[in-house]
Amino acid sequence: MTASLAFLGPVGTYAEAAALACAQWWQQEIDDHFELCPYPSIAQALQAVADEKCDFAIVPVENSIEGSVSMTLDTLWQLDMLQVQQAWILPISHALLSEADDIQDIESVCSHPQALAQCQGWLEQQLPQVKLVPTRSTTEALHHLRETPSMGAIASRRAAEIYSLPILAHPINDHPDNCTRFWLMSQKHSYAGSHSSLAFSLPSNVPGALLKPLQIFAERHINMSRIESRPTKRSLGEYVFFIDIERDLQCPDVRSGLEELKGYTETLKIFGSYSIHSAS
Amino acid sequence: MTASLAFLGPVGTYAEAAALACAQWWQQEIDDHFELCPYPSIAQALQAVADEKCDFAIVPVENSIEGSVSMTLDTLWQLDMLQVQQAWILPISHALLSEADDIQDIESVCSHPQALAQCQGWLEQQLPQVKLVPTRSTTEALHHLRETPSMGAIASRRAAEIYSLPILAHPINDHPDNCTRFWLMSQKHSYAGSHSSLAFSLPSNVPGALLKPLQIFAERHINMSRIESRPTKRSLGEYVFFIDIERDLQCPDVRSGLEELKGYTETLKIFGSYSIHSAS
Repeated sequence: MTASLAFLGPVGTYAEAAALACAQWWQQEIDDHFELCPYPSIAQALQAVADEKCDFAIVPVENSIEGSVSMTLDTLWQLDMLQVQQAWILPISHALLSEADDIQDIESVCSHPQALAQCQGWLEQQLPQVKLVPTRSTTEALHHLRETPSMGAIASRRAAEIYSLPILAHPINDHPDNCTRFWLMSQKHSYAGSHSSLAFSLPSNVPGALLKPLQIFAERHINMSRIESRPTKRSLGEYVFFIDIERDLQCPDVRSGLEELKGYTETLKIFGSYSIHSAS
Repeated sequence: MTASLAFLGPVGTYAEAAALACAQWWQQEIDDHFELCPYPSIAQALQAVADEKCDFAIVPVENSIEGSVSMTLDTLWQLDMLQVQQAWILPISHALLSEADDIQDIESVCSHPQALAQCQGWLEQQLPQVKLVPTRSTTEALHHLRETPSMGAIASRRAAEIYSLPILAHPINDHPDNCTRFWLMSQKHSYAGSHSSLAFSLPSNVPGALLKPLQIFAERHINMSRIESRPTKRSLGEYVFFIDIERDLQCPDVRSGLEELKGYTETLKIFGSYSIHSAS
């Protein structure tokens, strides 16, 4: 089978690295071939799967330093039908790319805001006067670097190869244990794997409304590996809760828990079960 | 008494509007006079209080559309000794400022990334071709607007007055119920008020470690009005949890709960009790 896989492009982004690792796994394990389709934003990559223009999308969910990727969580809450098929963990190692002869000749540094934030300490120490320019992805501005030697960019070493740009410093992330978790999404239902994810909103103005959902999992000794809140965007203090549990949806305790949970939530979305893979 | 109050500047930001509302309250209620001190970042405003260069800082904690302000939470976790004195809720109403004769002549729009995100839908509909330029605050780029009519900026109507800039459209936020919660921080201990806030990290690799802290509050019928997680920045899947409870620190249930909580957390920081005020 050949399937299409949407990701945040252009080529050379960390999302593409995750897409390549994932494509290799599917080829080796299932003999499926993935055709990679770059999109200009995470929201558009996910929308492509909802609209059946692509079969799969691989999107960043959280980074170990900068935390949740709000764009991904907010888009998944809005869209229906998307299910997590696999989680992929990718180590992130940033490089400074530039045509400048010397690092001190660099006047501005472009990158995705998350990458700029992850190298904040290094930039303040090495290039305190530099202007930081946020871009939509780590590779968006790379085609400008050739003709502008006073410009630098933070991207992966692979991006330096693809765009034939010199690496002036590497690694430059402030925390060496920097990695990003991606989700491979599709419209296919998924019930098997070590983890499951769900999200829910709660009825307004009910004090203690969050207690019951948490107790439902606690009573069944179902471990939550993550709880994340996002605003409902209706009024301050109303949240959507994203929860990861260490059990699959076929587990009877999970099934009875979710059945009970429906009675206490306003909207409940179940994103499926999946296993976790490591990219290198 | 005259006290100094740090905020994210320059003048005309929403943080300054919150600072002014807060200063007015302190003058009327306690006859204290606040001298306002702009800082180029939230982290620097908070650091000024930790270093005793300023007595107070007012910082955004969460917005009803864009969610938590990571910079504030991460800095508060790193610093010691800072306590919440009051919470202030400020309605956010964005305007498009520009010297352009017509809105269609605008080629780029600058603002703080949160403000750009809050007007995303309006911008896509009205100015789909425009280049979005993130800045460190909503007012940072305003002094460039006079000589560059092709440039627009998203800021408050008050900023338009201060910088004598025309308003081309208002309101332009996608969600009308847009408001931001600020915290007034100082080194003074605070035990009284309707709400209390705390943050904790959990010992690594203990399955279900989050259950016990949540149960401690549940057993005592203490309502959590908010739970937010931030990465510890050590390894993926390790979090700092920020919790707001609807009770003050003098309440015996809270005191016994916090005593028990210490036995289950790795680090526990208590940010004090405070009341919630509305700015207009």
